[in-house]
Amino acid sequence: MSSTYGNNLKLSIFGQSHGSAIGMTLDGIPAGLPIDLHKLQSFLNRRAPGQHDYSTPRKEEDAPEFLSGIIDGHTCGAPISAIIRNHNTRSGDYANLKNLPRPGHADYTAEIKYCGYQDAAGGGHFSGRLTAPLCIAGGLCKQWLENNGIHIFAHINSIAGIPDEPLKMDWCHPDVKAIKNDFPVINRKAGEQMREAIADARADGDSVGGTIECFITGLPVGLGNPMFDGIENRIAQIVFGIPAVKGISFGSGFDASTMHGSENNDSFVIHNGVVKTATNHSGGILGGISNGMPVIFTAAIKPTPSISKSQQSVNLSSMQYEELIVKGRHDPCIVPRAVPVIEAAAAIAIYDTYLSVF
Amino acid sequence: MSSTYGNNLKLSIFGQSHGSAIGMTLDGIPAGLPIDLHKLQSFLNRRAPGQHDYSTPRKEEDAPEFLSGIIDGHTCGAPISAIIRNHNTRSGDYANLKNLPRPGHADYTAEIKYCGYQDAAGGGHFSGRLTAPLCIAGGLCKQWLENNGIHIFAHINSIAGIPDEPLKMDWCHPDVKAIKNDFPVINRKAGEQMREAIADARADGDSVGGTIECFITGLPVGLGNPMFDGIENRIAQIVFGIPAVKGISFGSGFDASTMHGSENNDSFVIHNGVVKTATNHSGGILGGISNGMPVIFTAAIKPTPSISKSQQSVNLSSMQYEELIVKGRHDPCIVPRAVPVIEAAAAIAIYDTYLSVF
Amino acid sequence: MSSTYGNNLKLSIFGQSHGSAIGMTLDGIPAGLPIDLHKLQSFLNRRAPGQHDYSTPRKEEDAPEFLSGIIDGHTCGAPISAIIRNHNTRSGDYANLKNLPRPGHADYTAEIKYCGYQDAAGGGHFSGRLTAPLCIAGGLCKQWLENNGIHIFAHINSIAGIPDEPLKMDWCHPDVKAIKNDFPVINRKAGEQMREAIADARADGDSVGGTIECFITGLPVGLGNPMFDGIENRIAQIVFGIPAVKGISFGSGFDASTMHGSENNDSFVIHNGVVKTATNHSGGILGGISNGMPVIFTAAIKPTPSISKSQQSVNLSSMQYEELIVKGRHDPCIVPRAVPVIEAAAAIAIYDTYLSVF
Amino acid sequence: MSSTYGNNLKLSIFGQSHGSAIGMTLDGIPAGLPIDLHKLQSFLNRRAPGQHDYSTPRKEEDAPEFLSGIIDGHTCGAPISAIIRNHNTRSGDYANLKNLPRPGHADYTAEIKYCGYQDAAGGGHFSGRLTAPLCIAGGLCKQWLENNGIHIFAHINSIAGIPDEPLKMDWCHPDVKAIKNDFPVINRKAGEQMREAIADARADGDSVGGTIECFITGLPVGLGNPMFDGIENRIAQIVFGIPAVKGISFGSGFDASTMHGSENNDSFVIHNGVVKTATNHSGGILGGISNGMPVIFTAAIKPTPSISKSQQSVNLSSMQYEELIVKGRHDPCIVPRAVPVIEAAAAIAIYDTYLSVF
Repeated sequence: MSSTYGNNLKLSIFGQSHGSAIGMTLDGIPAGLPIDLHKLQSFLNRRAPGQHDYSTPRKEEDAPEFLSGIIDGHTCGAPISAIIRNHNTRSGDYANLKNLPRPGHADYTAEIKYCGYQDAAGGGHFSGRLTAPLCIAGGLCKQWLENNGIHIFAHINSIAGIPDEPLKMDWCHPDVKAIKNDFPVINRKAGEQMREAIADARADGDSVGGTIECFITGLPVGLGNPMFDGIENRIAQIVFGIPAVKGISFGSGFDASTMHGSENNDSFVIHNGVVKTATNHSGGILGGISNGMPVIFTAAIKPTPSISKSQQSVNLSSMQYEELIVKGRHDPCIVPRAVPVIEAAAAIAIYDTYLSVF
Repeated sequence: MSSTYGNNLKLSIFGQSHGSAIGMTLDGIPAGLPIDLHKLQSFLNRRAPGQHDYSTPRKEEDAPEFLSGIIDGHTCGAPISAIIRNHNTRSGDYANLKNLPRPGHADYTAEIKYCGYQDAAGGGHFSGRLTAPLCIAGGLCKQWLENNGIHIFAHINSIAGIPDEPLKMDWCHPDVKAIKNDFPVINRKAGEQMREAIADARADGDSVGGTIECFITGLPVGLGNPMFDGIENRIAQIVFGIPAVKGISFGSGFDASTMHGSENNDSFVIHNGVVKTATNHSGGILGGISNGMPVIFTAAIKPTPSISKSQQSVNLSSMQYEELIVKGRHDPCIVPRAVPVIEAAAAIAIYDTYLSVF
Repeated sequence: MSSTYGNNLKLSIFGQSHGSAIGMTLDGIPAGLPIDLHKLQSFLNRRAPGQHDYSTPRKEEDAPEFLSGIIDGHTCGAPISAIIRNHNTRSGDYANLKNLPRPGHADYTAEIKYCGYQDAAGGGHFSGRLTAPLCIAGGLCKQWLENNGIHIFAHINSIAGIPDEPLKMDWCHPDVKAIKNDFPVINRKAGEQMREAIADARADGDSVGGTIECFITGLPVGLGNPMFDGIENRIAQIVFGIPAVKGISFGSGFDASTMHGSENNDSFVIHNGVVKTATNHSGGILGGISNGMPVIFTAAIKPTPSISKSQQSVNLSSMQYEELIVKGRHDPCIVPRAVPVIEAAAAIAIYDTYLSVF
Repeated sequence: MSSTYGNNLKLSIFGQSHGSAIGMTLDGIPAGLPIDLHKLQSFLNRRAPGQHDYSTPRKEEDAPEFLSGIIDGHTCGAPISAIIRNHNTRSGDYANLKNLPRPGHADYTAEIKYCGYQDAAGGGHFSGRLTAPLCIAGGLCKQWLENNGIHIFAHINSIAGIPDEPLKMDWCHPDVKAIKNDFPVINRKAGEQMREAIADARADGDSVGGTIECFITGLPVGLGNPMFDGIENRIAQIVFGIPAVKGISFGSGFDASTMHGSENNDSFVIHNGVVKTATNHSGGILGGISNGMPVIFTAAIKPTPSISKSQQSVNLSSMQYEELIVKGRHDPCIVPRAVPVIEAAAAIAIYDTYLSVF
């Protein structure tokens, strides 16, 4: 039941990196919702490989074929299913992964869990390529949320420790057009430094990580639940489904641990006749439930584990040490391409919550 | 479906802070597992209020009454249910919460979500008191995991920014007796500084937060799943069910975002004939699946929102600003009492995973 | 996960026949719904033992204690939990069940599944007594459905092959006061014959079964889903959770298998300006979805397996044949007491469906 | 969440009758299980249309394309996904269904539920064509069960009221080769009468229904659960997902309602040193748990609602009565083709149960 998510909607993701196709089924969506396929394709292009100098040269069009669930540009109430064919596969590149696991990848754990039967090529079902169908589902949820005035956008918060400028915490409807480009940062100068850090890592055969900050605005007060099904729980559950995510925090997050209650508590204020909070350390969530402020979370992305540098591994057949050179095509930094993926994951979690009546 | 958790086991938690009882039902547990009620009570006592100078003076015995599921000291295959009666309730303390929401609490979001019908006394179902039944379930899961060589222990990682000494990352079976006390830190001196910070906050009518680090040792390789049902996803989903948690990270977590791939990747090594990793930046998890190293995660706990200092709120009836003085009995720092709660949550998540065949 | 039910609501049932208490937790219910405890008790009394000559002399008050979820006569949004203490237990009556399984009961299968650790007294968690917490949950759901104009009522359709008069299929709001008694039949004469058949069975130390027909009126058109989550699927899943149910059919059910399409198809008609069907062979369900006609189903109840007659069993220790005389107190026919249980199960299934938005 | 099934495995079915493809995703299957695609195709051919004089002349090859989850003839641990392209579509045949709902079909309920956005062509997602992906999943589960000695087979129990000869209830490993043909009955003569009844119905532009009996042998004792997750509950939930099923019974089923307890109870006997029952009125299930006897159930199939005879319907636009002539290609009796579908549904339910540890 590993690749299924959701309470009200049910998302099921399938495929392997170098199999014949990857795809998703999204069940439980109301009928009559419009779908803008052009807008969806623009969203998918933000994630697609082969477009930027900081990403893998593997070129895939990532154009989904919808098999079901859509009639005349609207959902029809039946499960929505879409696939993306894998054309540009090179499974030969990965022939030795089963015996010689790559550090930082799931090769070793998959080998043990699946007793050697796993599809090892390109990481198989563990590949970052599986974020493409996640983005199909998320891109659709994002459209439907937007139709209800709920907007989701993320930006590169830091790369290699170089921070972007923070978005102002109290923005409810920020003007974020500035960062709607393929390297979404607020501060251009910081962005240039980040690109240099990526270029340096690439030159060294190495990689860098970063953090992504995500904002969700326009949520009505009262969405979510206490305990195990709150907004934090749902977002965290799906965001850790994105390969390379190793941490998540909401609002002031880890910084809250160093603050006093009198600092971290958000005072209630009246704003245009509506209750808001003066600050937003809570990240828009109190008791798992939205409080009308923007939901804000940050995800930590580890550096791409695929690096060209020589690494030490163990040959699982001979149980001897062996030097490993990872071949194949890889991003020296996946953070820019992970930005829409984080948006997609958040959109799915929020839309799932949105579909609850209470 | 907010207060139900689990795939193989099903945990259902009920009760309100000042209702007649709180409790839990734990379904899906195999028959024949021994239960040590004395050991469970010792575990619950670590969380119970009224025992320490840094915790709330509300005194509850937290002695569970088991209603079902246990025969002759063993599970019998039927759902296990237990309740704790609430004796020391003072709901009068909270009479005005519905109109005057406390900053940092769920009073406002609950008022909107439940249209004024919520049990506002002491936070109702949102209260930290609900972690008592979580600890009943978690304390049982912890015992069953221990019977299979899987151990879980947490310590105070920091309070008010004062760090404890880090546990060595490569310990597989650490000697942690030293920290098995009611203020579980590794470095005594750091512990004393933390206690001072708590005492200072109390004197100021304020509160402090902190972080908790949790270790899970003895996991076999291959537990967990890719995508949405991995070890990170499951632990994160339940840990965010603990009030005041605002962040979680695994392994090197947010630090990974500043590292190079060549640093953060854990090289494979042969240790006593078994494959291990030289470092443990992955926190024991690759692709959502355990790799045989200790699973390590850190949770961020915000400062207790209940403070004696005067705070600004909005009267929801009159829509006028009003000063708020939080009455009632509260912890100036919940981090020490949250340590066993984190262990309990981790135990439930891991035991749920452990009950999967594959 | 055996004793948990529901998609939008989550019902968890616990307890054993001779344990200290039985009970239920019902999560996911909206806040602000009124609860009439007096009406609930009247409903529970219809199922309670010890009241009629055809039922077990075991006398239990079946008065639930609500532990959570209700404030001032309304749901408060938190999980609703209630328990019933078991006072009149006689576990000594069942001392030999583990070794000598009773035919028609779960003694043997429980012994194997739970490796001898099951609570064998009175059937433990398999006991018909567990239908009491089902009736607490179902009685509540029934009230909430009634508040929305949805009514559920069942009657004895047959006992020992003696049929009651059929309810007219096209009734939308039938006057069913006539059958609101403790032996709910439409035709009094048939009812007298049934009572005689029960008395005869009791005199012989034997038992009889029967069928129960259940009507649900007032459902809006469009409730339910295709495939695995339709009204039939949901009702069937929960109704088979009632011990002794061995069959279920909707509308013309098994009779449909002998009809022509031209007979069995329900023609569409206009009734008071609304689309209805001229007949109701579909039982109010087309494609898993309500069509505005009453939902009608029939459940088959096997004869009580506990009989006083000597039966052949196998001693599981000695693996020798042994004669078995079932002691304890039993109903010679559980059909009359099962009528409210069927209503309860239907109410839970329908209210769960009702809580879906689409 | 309508088209998703399972606890341990997760089956998701998608597609519409005249859409571009139908398909399924099956998640949660262990790695390393062999798949015999030739055997699967043979199984699918038993259901495929256009092969017999009693079935629809619509000719589809029903050859699945597997997109993921299979490597070198074995499951690889990743979700298994397969699609079948719809080639022979004639959606023009159904142009008027949205306004003029066919009696016995889901046209009307879908129109209301989906507000006119449903895919009405050929019944869309409600079509019997969706049993093809169910058979892909079920055919795989059937293979894996057979590898563990568990066999499932069904036969036509009756058509138009003409009964087949009953299979002997106490057979544990029956020789069923005789009925492995495209019109699976035990008694050839009865089979001929059934075919005549079908031919007569076709000649009249009418249709007939029937019943299907299904046997599952080789189950270990102890599979299943009490209450809501027993073998009956799981099988019933999925079997009602097959269009046209209107009833299900286990063991003596509805007949049990007319029997005495002393008749219906199955005495325990010792058979080759193992505990069995002398009769099998329980249908192999006690308390929701398998008792080592064959699991036996019967499903009632209504007559095909699509008939050529003129029927009365209501034009939903004009709200006027209108005569309806159903065009398109239809089976005068779907019972023969439903036999493998019943086997598939049972296989999925049982394999899901089989994947539970306890």
